[in-house]
Amino acid sequence: MESYQQIANGTVTNPAGFLAAATTCGLKASGNLDLALVYSERNCRTAAVFTQNQVVAAPVIVNRETLAGNRTAIRGIVANAGIANACTGAEGVANTRSMQKVAAFDLGCGPEQILVLSTGIIGVQLPMDRVQAGIETAASELSPANGRRAAEAIMTTDTRPKHLAVQVELAGGVVTIGGMAKGAGMIHPNMATMLAVITTDAVFAPAQLQALLEAAVNRSFNRISVDGDTSPSDTVLLLANGASGVTVADKESIALFARGLNHVCIELAQLIVRDGEGATKFVTIQVSGARTEADAHAIAQTIATSPLVKTAFAGSDPNWGRILAAAGRAGVPFDQNQVSLWIGVGATTGLQLVAQGTPLAYQEEAAAAVFAQPAFVVQLDLGQGKAATTMWTTDLTHDYVGINADYRT
Amino acid sequence: MESYQQIANGTVTNPAGFLAAATTCGLKASGNLDLALVYSERNCRTAAVFTQNQVVAAPVIVNRETLAGNRTAIRGIVANAGIANACTGAEGVANTRSMQKVAAFDLGCGPEQILVLSTGIIGVQLPMDRVQAGIETAASELSPANGRRAAEAIMTTDTRPKHLAVQVELAGGVVTIGGMAKGAGMIHPNMATMLAVITTDAVFAPAQLQALLEAAVNRSFNRISVDGDTSPSDTVLLLANGASGVTVADKESIALFARGLNHVCIELAQLIVRDGEGATKFVTIQVSGARTEADAHAIAQTIATSPLVKTAFAGSDPNWGRILAAAGRAGVPFDQNQVSLWIGVGATTGLQLVAQGTPLAYQEEAAAAVFAQPAFVVQLDLGQGKAATTMWTTDLTHDYVGINADYRT
Repeated sequence: MESYQQIANGTVTNPAGFLAAATTCGLKASGNLDLALVYSERNCRTAAVFTQNQVVAAPVIVNRETLAGNRTAIRGIVANAGIANACTGAEGVANTRSMQKVAAFDLGCGPEQILVLSTGIIGVQLPMDRVQAGIETAASELSPANGRRAAEAIMTTDTRPKHLAVQVELAGGVVTIGGMAKGAGMIHPNMATMLAVITTDAVFAPAQLQALLEAAVNRSFNRISVDGDTSPSDTVLLLANGASGVTVADKESIALFARGLNHVCIELAQLIVRDGEGATKFVTIQVSGARTEADAHAIAQTIATSPLVKTAFAGSDPNWGRILAAAGRAGVPFDQNQVSLWIGVGATTGLQLVAQGTPLAYQEEAAAAVFAQPAFVVQLDLGQGKAATTMWTTDLTHDYVGINADYRT
Repeated sequence: MESYQQIANGTVTNPAGFLAAATTCGLKASGNLDLALVYSERNCRTAAVFTQNQVVAAPVIVNRETLAGNRTAIRGIVANAGIANACTGAEGVANTRSMQKVAAFDLGCGPEQILVLSTGIIGVQLPMDRVQAGIETAASELSPANGRRAAEAIMTTDTRPKHLAVQVELAGGVVTIGGMAKGAGMIHPNMATMLAVITTDAVFAPAQLQALLEAAVNRSFNRISVDGDTSPSDTVLLLANGASGVTVADKESIALFARGLNHVCIELAQLIVRDGEGATKFVTIQVSGARTEADAHAIAQTIATSPLVKTAFAGSDPNWGRILAAAGRAGVPFDQNQVSLWIGVGATTGLQLVAQGTPLAYQEEAAAAVFAQPAFVVQLDLGQGKAATTMWTTDLTHDYVGINADYRT
């Protein structure tokens, strides 16, 4: 039995003391929800992981500064979709600071207690009059019932909101973890145009929280790839407000909480892949038999981002030579005569195509049938060592090109 | 005035003493030409550059062995398209050796004087009866008039043959350089599913030839990208048979010959990009102001392979934020507040979009008009130093996905 239980239709407001709101302020051409607030009635200990891109959006610059001065008393997050406020120079940074101040005023706290998330088009300034009006409206509508609406408001090319919550039973009582995320395009390890907000009512020491978040991100958001592009905006925030009164401090409760947190992050990450731009297939890439985990990861990542591999997935074409060719250009030395390859439906690897570098006499129809499934697994064993890793990716379809050739126009 | 002159419709048989032939032996479903011979009436000094992929096709394994024992007396190349003979285990290597022996028998030389090129589907064994019959037929049809047919026979998803020749006037007389190549998909620096054969009738010392080829490849084939995938088969061969009697040995004639060779390689490389799978646009990526040429190259390559950048090219969408975001994930540190960006038609950079990290108030229509051209340039200046580089790439279109989702089926 798992140590956590998923809550039906859970959101960031399932943990005690968290409220949310969402409104439309006119940043999306569609007229859909585009501004969200997440608010905690109590101060939050906060952990964060940001993009590793050299080009960072204004909110990333400002959030890093804010968290450098305050990791123990964050109260709210203001998030907008439609405009990323990235590559916007000094004016963009000033606009993010304005969003902090406006939200702080409307929520009755200090600007240094507000974090900001922006996603959407790069290189365009925010219309601050609309954003300000949106924050004001949202602040007046905060409720524990608006978690799903907040997840809707941060969507860009996403086709559905991504949110969940779990309860974890610890020795001292039950704590809840909620999460929401947006993704779809520019998704790649090291954080893509990917925003995630995770909330919990557990009581934490500050150092623990950051370590737990980094470990969870490495097992989840850093193992997904839609198109290999990473964005200047990627951010995962974890806010712990302590409202449950249950402290996570001993080794056992830390381990139990970590399992719940990992589940929330892995589920959100997989939801992002399943909703990848134009994606019709969810593909699990397993690389085993590597000398080191870094080797396994480099090869899995190269396979997961290869346009030739991903178009073969789209075409249900078990053109496994492309998988081996991608592995071979990952910069990791291996002996091609030791490589074996299996594919299978769902999470099982039933059909072996290559044994120690030599193609087997498998049935072409059987292999094509696997690649025609909505979810399948590709396992490459290098025969060089004992390290392994797993990544999740999608196919590359006509729709991906359509969505991205016409995103702005 | 340039020091070389291009020959109209030139091919690998323009240099004296080279013959070619091409035939259909049934490896392509289309029934098009699929087997070529290039033959020299005299022994050739030979230089070669091979794929850096860890997974290498049988011909690469065998050619490396052959050239390790004989770099001064190569007589012929047998090339087939349709089946790459890659990921084919011990049987594949045996088949390549058979091709050497059959060609040697039919051409009246030794197997160690024959090089082999194969391109096409990975993981399938060659039907050796057909290949053998094809070599026999081709050997009986060798002629200086068949250079273009040989270039046609090595095509896979290429839509047109790629060949040219130049004459270089040296102090000692005129030498000729001819070349042919195939490309289209799996094109990326470090040699993609890219085969090129270059011939010359100049007289060379062996060490010079390899150095000249490596320098030319670094300025040409290693600066193009269609989809970021590299293949196990990539090979560039340079054969010098000395038939002109003109020796390239002094510094000045080496420099003049190098210019001609670079031109042949750059033209062939650009022909490959222009004929990239589904490509509708030829884009020159210039990165300047880097600290080192390696930095500039890493950033140019990341931009040139970014699916988000390349779909924006396809959609004539001057979404320059994606270009900066791609630059930022290349693993090269830089200050985003020093970055400037220009775009322009043809080879000129007329329109500045970003100045030192800040977007300029350019006309959106003017920028879209540039990206709507069949050829344009993108110049990113990092403001960090004086190193620069240039790469050539294409857009990523619906047709790319169509071609690669259905390549085998």
